[in-house]
Amino acid sequence: MIKHGVVFTLKKNSPLTQEQFFSQALKLKKIDTVVNFEVVKETSPKNDFDFGLFMNFKNPQAYEFYNNHPDHVKFVEEIWLPNVEEFMEIDYEKIL
Amino acid sequence: MIKHGVVFTLKKNSPLTQEQFFSQALKLKKIDTVVNFEVVKETSPKNDFDFGLFMNFKNPQAYEFYNNHPDHVKFVEEIWLPNVEEFMEIDYEKIL
Repeated sequence: MIKHGVVFTLKKNSPLTQEQFFSQALKLKKIDTVVNFEVVKETSPKNDFDFGLFMNFKNPQAYEFYNNHPDHVKFVEEIWLPNVEEFMEIDYEKIL
Repeated sequence: MIKHGVVFTLKKNSPLTQEQFFSQALKLKKIDTVVNFEVVKETSPKNDFDFGLFMNFKNPQAYEFYNNHPDHVKFVEEIWLPNVEEFMEIDYEKIL
């Protein structure tokens, strides 16, 4: 199981409201190989990222299917890049 | 549900081997309020952190119980600080 996460902040003057942004982000969970899609909010001031998107994939191929899916590519170009200030991706697998 | 995570790298010359370090870390899951404790390994080179510990807590009080628990405090002092090079904590809650 691949666990894919990205934590991020939105631009202060982002074109979309938070509500509009997350409404668009939620559409990603319709991509076939996405499991347990979650929009999360940071609850402690321990880092600089306000929000996160977390999801699971059965295997690397399922992750690649998502990554290359036209709906994901379009989201990155039209929604993510214009609205996101900073981000950090976290991809991991359970080992213990 | 509070989701608490920390991603980190071990020191090149850490006193413990990786195996010894994770064997100690796994003891944290015995603390009463910890749910779904996972040791994870970063699977992509998208950030500088090699490993992570992720766990859930029912509520902020359950998280505080863990945070202040003598076994956790001892782990931080005797295992975490001497062996960990860099880390970033990620605490979040599902909003959508």
